[in-house]
Amino acid sequence: MKEHARQARAENRIIGLVPTMGALHRGHLALVHRAKQQCSPVIASLFVNPKQFGPKEDFAKYPRNFESDVEKFSAAGIDSLFAPDPDEMYPPVFHTYVTVEALSDRLEGRSRPGHFRGVTTVVMKLLQIVQPHFAYFGRKDAQQARIIMQMVRDLNLDSEIVVCPIIREADGLALSSRNAYLAADERRAATVLHRALTAAREELSAGVRDTLQLRTVLQRVLNSEPLAAMDYAEIVDADTFEPVARVARPCYVLLAVFFGKTRLIDNLYIEPAGPGAHEDFVYHL
Amino acid sequence: MKEHARQARAENRIIGLVPTMGALHRGHLALVHRAKQQCSPVIASLFVNPKQFGPKEDFAKYPRNFESDVEKFSAAGIDSLFAPDPDEMYPPVFHTYVTVEALSDRLEGRSRPGHFRGVTTVVMKLLQIVQPHFAYFGRKDAQQARIIMQMVRDLNLDSEIVVCPIIREADGLALSSRNAYLAADERRAATVLHRALTAAREELSAGVRDTLQLRTVLQRVLNSEPLAAMDYAEIVDADTFEPVARVARPCYVLLAVFFGKTRLIDNLYIEPAGPGAHEDFVYHL
Repeated sequence: MKEHARQARAENRIIGLVPTMGALHRGHLALVHRAKQQCSPVIASLFVNPKQFGPKEDFAKYPRNFESDVEKFSAAGIDSLFAPDPDEMYPPVFHTYVTVEALSDRLEGRSRPGHFRGVTTVVMKLLQIVQPHFAYFGRKDAQQARIIMQMVRDLNLDSEIVVCPIIREADGLALSSRNAYLAADERRAATVLHRALTAAREELSAGVRDTLQLRTVLQRVLNSEPLAAMDYAEIVDADTFEPVARVARPCYVLLAVFFGKTRLIDNLYIEPAGPGAHEDFVYHL
Repeated sequence: MKEHARQARAENRIIGLVPTMGALHRGHLALVHRAKQQCSPVIASLFVNPKQFGPKEDFAKYPRNFESDVEKFSAAGIDSLFAPDPDEMYPPVFHTYVTVEALSDRLEGRSRPGHFRGVTTVVMKLLQIVQPHFAYFGRKDAQQARIIMQMVRDLNLDSEIVVCPIIREADGLALSSRNAYLAADERRAATVLHRALTAAREELSAGVRDTLQLRTVLQRVLNSEPLAAMDYAEIVDADTFEPVARVARPCYVLLAVFFGKTRLIDNLYIEPAGPGAHEDFVYHL
């Protein structure tokens, strides 16, 4: 892979990387489509990274569909697939970790200790191996994307991180490989994430800026769903991921909710509108 | 610097990096000479890295001689000097650190908490900015060199680490920017490092392999010098930096000793001799 990337760099080609853990859905393929608009070659990686799963998490049962993933990637038009062996990525003597402090401690980091350290370490390795000019991540994992951007900036990496919109099912559920874990009743209940975010967006459109009020709305909708057990529902600054009292700059409404043993996340991105817009914010669901 | 390195890479030139904190001595210049044998351009960096000094260490008073360093680098024939501003290397929002576990916890890492995290983080940044094919480090900082090699391997970096011999004064004192701190009597006392290592080498040449016996010799020589206060004297595996009971594979004899407030380190590298040699080991002082 390194030799392949070196060759592409030597030919002045623009390398795009779409890092995945496989179990592909249209969200991943949207990243490939976006990459193909900017890059050639587009290289996808498929690696279920053991370091980003906690000891009690779902590493062993994480969905693995290598053959069908290869078909999907191929149909989407990637140029190469990098699917390394875990023993090659993490040989027996392996000691080095990349950590992004502060941003990694809250929210997903607090609920999943060590998760982001595993993510930043593997993404660093992938960026070094593939040497992409652009690397594509989904906004569903908003905190992850923010942390990776911080890593790239702090360590002077030569790759630009591109964050792409959330892709949803017709009923609003954000696509996730973990949706496959849901039983039929949990799958129906899981639309509550989108319903809660939609309710928050309606409040925002009506001019509500107080985040206590917005969180009350989120909790009311989440509580209305008996199969949903909230992990967190926060409105945070999009740069620091610290909770804010009022929506006055770019923010995220972040949700993490359990349905049985399956933990799903979703978010609403609140971005200041451009000059001359009707509203002061634009809401990305 | 990044643009400069990109250009050199695009021209298929071999980039060599000699990272320094300035206060140059012949040890640094030997790295430049070695780099010039393999690389063009040879890029030196000069950056007194605040992150590798502990809160009670000598960051503020670390010797800084920018003008004379530039002259020395220039006379040694470097092609470019990278001397970034601390605020540019570490802007106000900076959160990312590279850590090498296990290897960073012992010896220098134990005596200087956080030191190696600062080293690996800044070296990672320098390697990303300068994109060298080869980067040159002195063997005096043997544990540092080993840790950086582990980082390069674990994170799949595109640079090869070259470790160069210790350069010494006529009386055996290893060159170090910190030698400038020594008062005249401390300077005389500091030769005890080399005397202790020489005594250990004599025992080794006589066939001694038991490290308890070797440490007794080291301590006896160090104790003979009233101005020397030992921090540690260990014989460790050259790969793991864990103490060994017998010398049977590549090892380091490592010393860290205080002379007043000045802490100096030195080492003897024990390498298995090639086939047909008179002795089973070669000793690099």
